[in-house]
Amino acid sequence: MARSVISYAPLFRIDGESSLSLQEQIRRRVISAIASGVFPPGQKLPSSRKLSQELGLSRNTVFLAYQLLIADGHLETKQRSGVFVAQGLAGSQNKILRVAGQNSRSQLSTSSSANANRFLRTGFVGDKGYKCPPDWQKHKFPFIEGRYDKTLFPIQEWREASRLALGVREVDEWSLDNGEVDDASLIEEIRTKLLPRRGISARPDELLITVGEQQALFLATQLFARKNTKVAVEEPSLPELRQLLKLRKAKLHHQYIDDAGLLVNDHLNDCDVVCVSPSRQRPTGVTLSLARRKALLKKAEKHDFVILEDDFECEMNYLDDALPALHSLDNNGRVIYVASLSKVLAPGVRLGFMVAPAEVIAQARKLRDLTTRRPSPNNQRSAAFFLSLGHYDTMLRRLNNVYEERLISLRDALNHYRPASIAIAPVKGGTTYWVKGPEKLDVSLLVRAAEAQGILIEPAKDWFALPDGPKNMFRLGVTSLPAHRIREGIQHLSALITKLDNPLIKDLSSLDHDWLCPKKLKVKMKGLTLLNKTVYGDPCTIILHKNGLMTGRSGYSGEEQDVGRWWVEGDKWVRQWENWAFGEALGFHVKITDDNLFWLDDHGNEVDRAIISATGK
Amino acid sequence: MARSVISYAPLFRIDGESSLSLQEQIRRRVISAIASGVFPPGQKLPSSRKLSQELGLSRNTVFLAYQLLIADGHLETKQRSGVFVAQGLAGSQNKILRVAGQNSRSQLSTSSSANANRFLRTGFVGDKGYKCPPDWQKHKFPFIEGRYDKTLFPIQEWREASRLALGVREVDEWSLDNGEVDDASLIEEIRTKLLPRRGISARPDELLITVGEQQALFLATQLFARKNTKVAVEEPSLPELRQLLKLRKAKLHHQYIDDAGLLVNDHLNDCDVVCVSPSRQRPTGVTLSLARRKALLKKAEKHDFVILEDDFECEMNYLDDALPALHSLDNNGRVIYVASLSKVLAPGVRLGFMVAPAEVIAQARKLRDLTTRRPSPNNQRSAAFFLSLGHYDTMLRRLNNVYEERLISLRDALNHYRPASIAIAPVKGGTTYWVKGPEKLDVSLLVRAAEAQGILIEPAKDWFALPDGPKNMFRLGVTSLPAHRIREGIQHLSALITKLDNPLIKDLSSLDHDWLCPKKLKVKMKGLTLLNKTVYGDPCTIILHKNGLMTGRSGYSGEEQDVGRWWVEGDKWVRQWENWAFGEALGFHVKITDDNLFWLDDHGNEVDRAIISATGK
Repeated sequence: MARSVISYAPLFRIDGESSLSLQEQIRRRVISAIASGVFPPGQKLPSSRKLSQELGLSRNTVFLAYQLLIADGHLETKQRSGVFVAQGLAGSQNKILRVAGQNSRSQLSTSSSANANRFLRTGFVGDKGYKCPPDWQKHKFPFIEGRYDKTLFPIQEWREASRLALGVREVDEWSLDNGEVDDASLIEEIRTKLLPRRGISARPDELLITVGEQQALFLATQLFARKNTKVAVEEPSLPELRQLLKLRKAKLHHQYIDDAGLLVNDHLNDCDVVCVSPSRQRPTGVTLSLARRKALLKKAEKHDFVILEDDFECEMNYLDDALPALHSLDNNGRVIYVASLSKVLAPGVRLGFMVAPAEVIAQARKLRDLTTRRPSPNNQRSAAFFLSLGHYDTMLRRLNNVYEERLISLRDALNHYRPASIAIAPVKGGTTYWVKGPEKLDVSLLVRAAEAQGILIEPAKDWFALPDGPKNMFRLGVTSLPAHRIREGIQHLSALITKLDNPLIKDLSSLDHDWLCPKKLKVKMKGLTLLNKTVYGDPCTIILHKNGLMTGRSGYSGEEQDVGRWWVEGDKWVRQWENWAFGEALGFHVKITDDNLFWLDDHGNEVDRAIISATGK
Repeated sequence: MARSVISYAPLFRIDGESSLSLQEQIRRRVISAIASGVFPPGQKLPSSRKLSQELGLSRNTVFLAYQLLIADGHLETKQRSGVFVAQGLAGSQNKILRVAGQNSRSQLSTSSSANANRFLRTGFVGDKGYKCPPDWQKHKFPFIEGRYDKTLFPIQEWREASRLALGVREVDEWSLDNGEVDDASLIEEIRTKLLPRRGISARPDELLITVGEQQALFLATQLFARKNTKVAVEEPSLPELRQLLKLRKAKLHHQYIDDAGLLVNDHLNDCDVVCVSPSRQRPTGVTLSLARRKALLKKAEKHDFVILEDDFECEMNYLDDALPALHSLDNNGRVIYVASLSKVLAPGVRLGFMVAPAEVIAQARKLRDLTTRRPSPNNQRSAAFFLSLGHYDTMLRRLNNVYEERLISLRDALNHYRPASIAIAPVKGGTTYWVKGPEKLDVSLLVRAAEAQGILIEPAKDWFALPDGPKNMFRLGVTSLPAHRIREGIQHLSALITKLDNPLIKDLSSLDHDWLCPKKLKVKMKGLTLLNKTVYGDPCTIILHKNGLMTGRSGYSGEEQDVGRWWVEGDKWVRQWENWAFGEALGFHVKITDDNLFWLDDHGNEVDRAIISATGK
């Protein structure tokens, strides 16, 4: 009964019709098992007596095969305890293969693959340039979006939810193989708790659970794109989305975005499907404005297209109010809405969902059934408990607080260290900043140089589809970096940008020293009103009062204010804000030409600049 | 901060540009939320004061909207406790929709779908005739394969594995979003424990974890089939496999099977891919013989095709030894091997795997990443613990014992109640019997009649692709039926078959009564040697000794033997075996013509027949 459970016989399968001797066959099987790691070094082998019984061979055959293997160094004996795989073989597989000759399984799988390859369909992912190192968590400054931060995982809460889902009655329910059906309690939690906040009311048959948001995107693209379907995607956008559409042989149109999200113009008129990430544009993080949302829906109605709404990070808006989902503004069932639970739930739980008209969900369900069947029912039930116990809301609040602090730290650090040479896209929340570096910055060089210093950043290149994409952009994320470490990381990164952007450091002594004279400097600065911009694009007005006080206002209506002091120290102008710029005193060289004021570092590099809107005279 | 977490404002989103009044907009939002079930009957609404504050409207606007809704019967007030959704509205959605007029969300989603439908790709599953009722577990005799039996789920063991996987260090490991990478410990467990038993040695890069076996089939068909690829599938075979191949527009060839599995003949010569389920053919349960396996691999080599090996239920062989997997016999990397962990693990855990040359796995991994990303890492780690703690082996042994008992019960019951009119395919294990009923049996009628008596059986029709498929076949499974209930179910089913097969019950009195004379009967039966067949096709020899003893041998070399007694009682011949036929005494009418002996029931229906190979004279 169930003999196969405990027998190694299949591994030593002997072929009576083979041209090889029985002894040779055993020998090769053992070598192959060592080479593939099935028998690791130190593994005990079945005794020759036992194996010969199992295989129905004479004991001598097995014994001689073992002896040869021992002589060749593959196996070794330990007195009175048996035959073992030799130690130190793990690292020397090549040697084993050489000894094993041409028939070893591992060597064959190389020639072999040529056979399968003749038929194999390849090219599922374009040459993605950047890959996050697998050991990213060993880097001190991993500015990579979406990575796991173990300090944030709700381990106690998830354990509780999992434990409840393993109750006898629960298991009976979620184990019933009802094939296509999702966990009713999870559907109810999403329908009545998550969706209303996004303005969406959906019936149970308008909702499908998916293996992460990725499967929802897969199903939607399979359902709505086919050969020559014209599909608009954002430029830049998620490379995987473009790839999914290419699998369907759809015709892609790359529609540009700006600070208010996807441009809604006549380029969309002849599209069949428009893909958009309104809450948080992937990858730039900008939000589609309400006006654009309405314009997009109007256009969809007029030109009869379907909208695929990727509602990424819709719940993480700490810098402004959330806008209603496109799906909730739609009166015509034109919007296929997909979202993830993973951002708040355990990142390893892999659950997402889709909201769409019932007929669409019915087809999506069939396709899901065909390709994976339903997502793990045990995780569905655990997630339902996680939501119903209120852990989701608690966790969401906690994440929003943590991420808000981190994101503001990042913004402030960027503003402090790189005010003039970079710009960041305006965001309402989320966990990333999309950064435009100095015009001539080669981001691929920066990524490499930064990684060498333990700083991981994502180059923007892969997100762009069109060849004219900018070379000087990258993305910074904070999901796996505590707030207190962000500033230090940006300081180092900033120094690297300066180094790469100005390969020839100017020699200050070679410059006109007129503006370096301390006395003149003090006179010239007194009473100036300066206009410049924050790194995130807000206007900022600074008045250098004659008495050494300094006042600043930033934002379009001066929402943010600070006061500080300024003075001259040697040949440098020094300023210190109370709150801004971390409240630290910082000295610069200053150069004034016409209406422009330049702050320079010790090497003569421009750090920031301003327009002089009024002088003290 | 995180305002959206606790506010219902998005649901009551007000559009300043709408042609509807504010009051009307609120009214429609509430009605829509009731209709979709987001506000269930009895749900308390936010007070008009609170809602007006949140929406920035005058309290009067909200108050008047509520008053109208109360007047219309949608809401009701309870003294001093607020406004609630009226009771008894759940069942009257149509009425609500009528009242709500044309703009209600739920009504719109009907007209709406027409919009999305214009673009929607449909037809993912052919008209599958039979669907197992969702409440199958309420039926007394669910002979449906693969359904969950809660008495068999290893709940304690799975809980232990899950608990361990939720240890702090474990969570840290499996939560790291390493994207494509599978759980290393699960890969090791499968590689070093499961695969060697099937004769397979594979390196870690030759192994991929999938969302159930279904995803492995999906990935394999996506990788190896494209437009006009010629793919052989078994006839009958899994409808979902054919559907997956149709999605790729492959050309299907339907290759017949017999009791030794897939026919290996020249029809396969021009195929690019051959799909086969050798361990347990899906759906018939027969096993591909070793000779066929070798012939298939030889043909693959000669005619250069790839083999997709669906190793369904490979570990459940209690009636014979397991044969080595095709993958293990292959020296050329032509075999893509897919299997499931779900049969032994929790049925709700959804894990399977694929073994193939490294280049194939690399492409499969990319496609998996694109369509779902990796299968739930928490379940992967739990499964790794389940295996490493030995629970998998224990469970497998237990399942094999239970299923063996059940399967033998099923075989014996079939043999007892339906010996002449049905035949079952020979199996070496597993959990099903593929049954061929009487020639003219209409299985679709039988399925309906059986369901009315609490007996669920699967018609074979859906498994056949060719139009000439038999109408008189069905499948019986035992995964969710305890052994002691099987006989009773088959007894009822047998009675139904008799009824459907012989709509006109013959009147015994109208028949020739010669052979019913007790005295003649005794004389004629004495000393006969009878040859017949068991329901599973084995020959059976029965000798009716003159002294009333009876001996029987069945199997090709008489492996099974039993003794018993026979006698005549009234006008019936009665027999009683010691073990066979449940050891019960059973009487028949007997008719003899030439060399044939017929056993008849009280209604004159033939129950069994035998050839008379020797008489007592």
